[in-house]
Amino acid sequence: MTGARILLLNPNTSAEMTERMLEAGRAVAARDTDLVPLTAVRGVPYIATRAEAQIGGAIALEMLAEHHRRVDAAIIAAFGDPGLFGARELFDIPVVGLAEAAMLTACMLGRRFAIVSFARALGPWYEECVAMHGLTGRCAGIRLLDSPFREVTAVQEEKEDRLVRLANEAVQRDEADVVILAGAPLSGLAAKVAHRIPVPVVDQVAAAVKQAEALAALRPRKATEGTFRRPPAKRVTGLPAALAARITHADDVEA
Amino acid sequence: MTGARILLLNPNTSAEMTERMLEAGRAVAARDTDLVPLTAVRGVPYIATRAEAQIGGAIALEMLAEHHRRVDAAIIAAFGDPGLFGARELFDIPVVGLAEAAMLTACMLGRRFAIVSFARALGPWYEECVAMHGLTGRCAGIRLLDSPFREVTAVQEEKEDRLVRLANEAVQRDEADVVILAGAPLSGLAAKVAHRIPVPVVDQVAAAVKQAEALAALRPRKATEGTFRRPPAKRVTGLPAALAARITHADDVEA
Amino acid sequence: MTGARILLLNPNTSAEMTERMLEAGRAVAARDTDLVPLTAVRGVPYIATRAEAQIGGAIALEMLAEHHRRVDAAIIAAFGDPGLFGARELFDIPVVGLAEAAMLTACMLGRRFAIVSFARALGPWYEECVAMHGLTGRCAGIRLLDSPFREVTAVQEEKEDRLVRLANEAVQRDEADVVILAGAPLSGLAAKVAHRIPVPVVDQVAAAVKQAEALAALRPRKATEGTFRRPPAKRVTGLPAALAARITHADDVEA
Amino acid sequence: MTGARILLLNPNTSAEMTERMLEAGRAVAARDTDLVPLTAVRGVPYIATRAEAQIGGAIALEMLAEHHRRVDAAIIAAFGDPGLFGARELFDIPVVGLAEAAMLTACMLGRRFAIVSFARALGPWYEECVAMHGLTGRCAGIRLLDSPFREVTAVQEEKEDRLVRLANEAVQRDEADVVILAGAPLSGLAAKVAHRIPVPVVDQVAAAVKQAEALAALRPRKATEGTFRRPPAKRVTGLPAALAARITHADDVEA
Amino acid sequence: MTGARILLLNPNTSAEMTERMLEAGRAVAARDTDLVPLTAVRGVPYIATRAEAQIGGAIALEMLAEHHRRVDAAIIAAFGDPGLFGARELFDIPVVGLAEAAMLTACMLGRRFAIVSFARALGPWYEECVAMHGLTGRCAGIRLLDSPFREVTAVQEEKEDRLVRLANEAVQRDEADVVILAGAPLSGLAAKVAHRIPVPVVDQVAAAVKQAEALAALRPRKATEGTFRRPPAKRVTGLPAALAARITHADDVEA
Amino acid sequence: MTGARILLLNPNTSAEMTERMLEAGRAVAARDTDLVPLTAVRGVPYIATRAEAQIGGAIALEMLAEHHRRVDAAIIAAFGDPGLFGARELFDIPVVGLAEAAMLTACMLGRRFAIVSFARALGPWYEECVAMHGLTGRCAGIRLLDSPFREVTAVQEEKEDRLVRLANEAVQRDEADVVILAGAPLSGLAAKVAHRIPVPVVDQVAAAVKQAEALAALRPRKATEGTFRRPPAKRVTGLPAALAARITHADDVEA
Repeated sequence: MTGARILLLNPNTSAEMTERMLEAGRAVAARDTDLVPLTAVRGVPYIATRAEAQIGGAIALEMLAEHHRRVDAAIIAAFGDPGLFGARELFDIPVVGLAEAAMLTACMLGRRFAIVSFARALGPWYEECVAMHGLTGRCAGIRLLDSPFREVTAVQEEKEDRLVRLANEAVQRDEADVVILAGAPLSGLAAKVAHRIPVPVVDQVAAAVKQAEALAALRPRKATEGTFRRPPAKRVTGLPAALAARITHADDVEA
Repeated sequence: MTGARILLLNPNTSAEMTERMLEAGRAVAARDTDLVPLTAVRGVPYIATRAEAQIGGAIALEMLAEHHRRVDAAIIAAFGDPGLFGARELFDIPVVGLAEAAMLTACMLGRRFAIVSFARALGPWYEECVAMHGLTGRCAGIRLLDSPFREVTAVQEEKEDRLVRLANEAVQRDEADVVILAGAPLSGLAAKVAHRIPVPVVDQVAAAVKQAEALAALRPRKATEGTFRRPPAKRVTGLPAALAARITHADDVEA
Repeated sequence: MTGARILLLNPNTSAEMTERMLEAGRAVAARDTDLVPLTAVRGVPYIATRAEAQIGGAIALEMLAEHHRRVDAAIIAAFGDPGLFGARELFDIPVVGLAEAAMLTACMLGRRFAIVSFARALGPWYEECVAMHGLTGRCAGIRLLDSPFREVTAVQEEKEDRLVRLANEAVQRDEADVVILAGAPLSGLAAKVAHRIPVPVVDQVAAAVKQAEALAALRPRKATEGTFRRPPAKRVTGLPAALAARITHADDVEA
Repeated sequence: MTGARILLLNPNTSAEMTERMLEAGRAVAARDTDLVPLTAVRGVPYIATRAEAQIGGAIALEMLAEHHRRVDAAIIAAFGDPGLFGARELFDIPVVGLAEAAMLTACMLGRRFAIVSFARALGPWYEECVAMHGLTGRCAGIRLLDSPFREVTAVQEEKEDRLVRLANEAVQRDEADVVILAGAPLSGLAAKVAHRIPVPVVDQVAAAVKQAEALAALRPRKATEGTFRRPPAKRVTGLPAALAARITHADDVEA
Repeated sequence: MTGARILLLNPNTSAEMTERMLEAGRAVAARDTDLVPLTAVRGVPYIATRAEAQIGGAIALEMLAEHHRRVDAAIIAAFGDPGLFGARELFDIPVVGLAEAAMLTACMLGRRFAIVSFARALGPWYEECVAMHGLTGRCAGIRLLDSPFREVTAVQEEKEDRLVRLANEAVQRDEADVVILAGAPLSGLAAKVAHRIPVPVVDQVAAAVKQAEALAALRPRKATEGTFRRPPAKRVTGLPAALAARITHADDVEA
Repeated sequence: MTGARILLLNPNTSAEMTERMLEAGRAVAARDTDLVPLTAVRGVPYIATRAEAQIGGAIALEMLAEHHRRVDAAIIAAFGDPGLFGARELFDIPVVGLAEAAMLTACMLGRRFAIVSFARALGPWYEECVAMHGLTGRCAGIRLLDSPFREVTAVQEEKEDRLVRLANEAVQRDEADVVILAGAPLSGLAAKVAHRIPVPVVDQVAAAVKQAEALAALRPRKATEGTFRRPPAKRVTGLPAALAARITHADDVEA
């Protein structure tokens, strides 16, 4: 079995964030894994609300429609997993979300995980993401910084100490057994601060890469029944070409 | 208090469906209510899957961005409520979903409601919509026809008898106290078949119009705190003009 | 469609409270709605405990038995909804509870509502009411004043500032998206203080009137199957005449 | 410790049913237990619906108000436990419900219990009773006969075979580990048919007597805090004398 | 009916603890009940963690295998109920757990019980025990002392005041209606401190003895179907003789 | 990063089963992964009930105590995960259960997974395992063959067709999106029958190996806080040497 090609799909428009995530992923990827980075060309620099996730999830589908045939598996690389279930339905390759991978990995390291992130605005979206995955009972709580930061791309350096303190509070007060440092801007931070937090710390990108590798190795078949079978062909109006082709099944010809 | 202007926003591209819903809504609207129909100019003729809901919800936000200032309240007129929570966050007017309105209304008529619709493909999306509203415990089940139909716009006439039978099965076998005939193509059917079903039958558009009127009359303020306050301004790339203006707060000037 | 006659049934013996609720209801009622006030002639001045709700609910059934034929819909106007499900079973008109209407309306304005009221004693009853409606997952919490007041009928004036503070705490600490000012004595307060609370505030009576109007307009049929069909005739001993006639079906003759 | 006096309070008006329950209770009572039977003088012969439970629960409170001082503990002897939580709040002695005692006892004999009874009409009330006690997750299902019977007081003889069949179906199809024969008219049946059902069968009255004895022996103090402390004195209008005295605290004098 | 013989099985190796529990049990046992104490000969002095419960539960099965034929019912006398469900499956007599009996008894005295104990280490195990019994919704919380103690066998004397304070906090802050003093070392404490706690206090051993007496009196049959029927004979290697005989059914001969 | 050594710990006494699992694991393991098989020397040939899981879990702890220092991660290779949480607490390496790994992997392939196995006796244990992991909401159901088989070690060959049929029923009737073929004797079957089942099929051992590899690569630290920190040293009596040394911390010296 040769190594897997894994799409690291950033539905945000910040290439700097993609770069950071790529680095965090490469640190744990198997030697023969090929991580393929991709940054959204439209949308917002950093998805943080329900409305932005609604839009960003549609953009993720557009991006997958263009690139899914080039890879063995894909990661939707925004904590909150915009468009994940639609992607799983529409495409044949395994697709995993950053939040999903981090939470499921955390489940194997403790009874309850805490989600720690850098902005209060992310709370509602993250909470609904946990519920969407049916993992509310495994979540000890979401703890968020509540002070302004200079640059989202440098927030992990600027707020490192405060994030570590928040993680420790999650352990002491919320009885978290595991901590997830959540949100693309915090990618790679876990490795730096793990020794300052008394429980396992999960890096979302590291977890997602290992889960995508696992799925690629297991080579699951595409469902032709159940709720994730590919929907039948449907007419569309005004959608980007690749996405339109996927929905109308026009792409069957080219396959 | 003069009557309310209510946007009947169809995130599907079928104008015929909008027409049918308009008719069902007018049958129960207050005399001084003004229903303003609007049909999507891009997307699919009929949203039926998670991927289509992801895309359609983004389109609903685009449509609201263009029209929200002209109305007192809006209805996202697709059962499944694509984009609803994002809309509630992004805009200042009350916004209600077709599924939401039908289910909450049904809650006042019995302990558990059944959702009855015309295609098996709708099941997963509807089920996730019920869960998204936290109403799984009030839902007796979802019963769906499982045979092909000729025209989605005429499915309620073609399948009337079978839908009535399904509704009766929901009452007899699932202990439903109320039946919701779900999916835009079934709008207006409740009034025709209510006498053949031994429990209250809720028409989704009728319920949505009355709930939108109720919200308009109560004149709730826009949240400036909590999870539905308007997100702060954010840079965007490549989004339609009105939606971009709403997210960047450029529209504050014109207001 | 001419306007609806709606019974505003106060299961408490305080006519002053009925008056206050009538005023709050009229402020939002449609022009052609006719609100019919009714105050209990026996019971307690203000239901606040499980035992009082048990007794008050039975009294509500007695009152409905006497008046249900005169109206198109009824409101059981005590937050906690005493006797609601029994009423929905026993009578043919739509019946809505104050808590039910407020909570379902709040669901359309946010993810989680807080219930704010004026006495700690109300907590258990309110909490069980939320659970009875299956809405525990939508409730951010119940916050109650814990200090004596002079007159229950004037408690909203006496405690206005403290109630507003409590509502703000519910928003800040419990992440409530909506606030319900609960308990008949707080009827009408929402309109006065909404501008001091940064999220939508639901007035229980206003919500109930709009929901009763909605149900009256939808004209749902009485169930003849399901758990809210009218129970078959049964012998009774020692019950008030109208209620006895309803249970024994003796009232079928006079209908 | 001398034996306990236990009130067997039947909130129904059928003295024949009280007699049957007394017999079932005596079969398992400790030698020094004194079971004190009491039959409602007003109400219905057999509570079966939410409305009847609302009324019957209020009557149970009236009966307890007259008799609570004469006994060490009380059983509200109708499956569905009308008025139970109000009683637990209002009076100082332990009070246990028939359904409550049967279900909690069943929990010690298996993972999930089935409730088997003789009339479909009882379903909604029983289901809501299970939920009220927070035991839905321990209930394998409710199975009910759906055919007319001649006399409710003789239904256990008339339908014995069909009830046994139903119990066996609950074991085979619903994976019940324990069976509860529910509804006052089935009191005493468990002992007769236990050998025909391959899992433990709980007799509701037998369970209630043993639980009431247990509570009497443990001599729990009356709460002066928490949600079951006695409510403060309150004015009443038009309530029966003993109940009025209990609510107004006029009975404190005579104590 | 002559009195019941009840095995008080302590899966810990501390005979002093067995003695203390025996005393607490005798204080409430019926006159003709015969409590048979038994202390583990291998294991740990005091089970406090998941690993110890895994081992201690297996030891409890070994002990029951040797003694079950001598008694009418058994109590697994460690709060946390190690081995309980396995015991209920493997043996014919009723078996009840200390936590189970305390919690079910508490359910009849209030809406929510608090668990109060003497060491933070017990938290996870107790919490999982509550969930295992499906009673999470009835639990107001678990409050634990977090300071070192001298001797586990004398902890109730050493920490009496602090435990009482903790119990009062559970009532005031967690809205507990009932308090359970949990953990074998606290057996008998309830009787001493009940007057200092404003809600009913349940003694775990007292509750377990009364529940075991109740089950013995009801004489439930051993299931031959359902999930607690005795498993079919199976080969074993390297298990203690009595347990091996029970699993292989070799003990059928000697019976 | 050189490859991981992963202990494949079979808590059953059947070496043939260990061999079969080893083969299924090797088929998907990374080239540099070293799978170390280990078979229990005492216990039962095949754990199938709660009592056997109680005993087998204790045996798994004994085995881990002897071997944990030789490996980077461990798999408890019995579906049902006996002893898993105790192991996670007691040892420093990552430990994953067969059921846990299969279920979490399945969560990334669909909304709800079905568990399909070969004997009805396994049902209760599997169901409690799903609940223990908090994944009941993600489980579409458990379907089990209910007919005798000749040899448990050859049951997958004997029953292949019937298991495939069961899997298809789980998809068609229970709306499963993914199928897990559960129970050690079915290891390796997924690869053979995946093409006959229209949704992804998860092999429990393949999933566990990939998850153990993922955890080994992420190198999570051992918790020193939270509920999975290592318990403090404790005295023991009569336990196997290695396990005793681990619990008493005597093994700290040798480390």
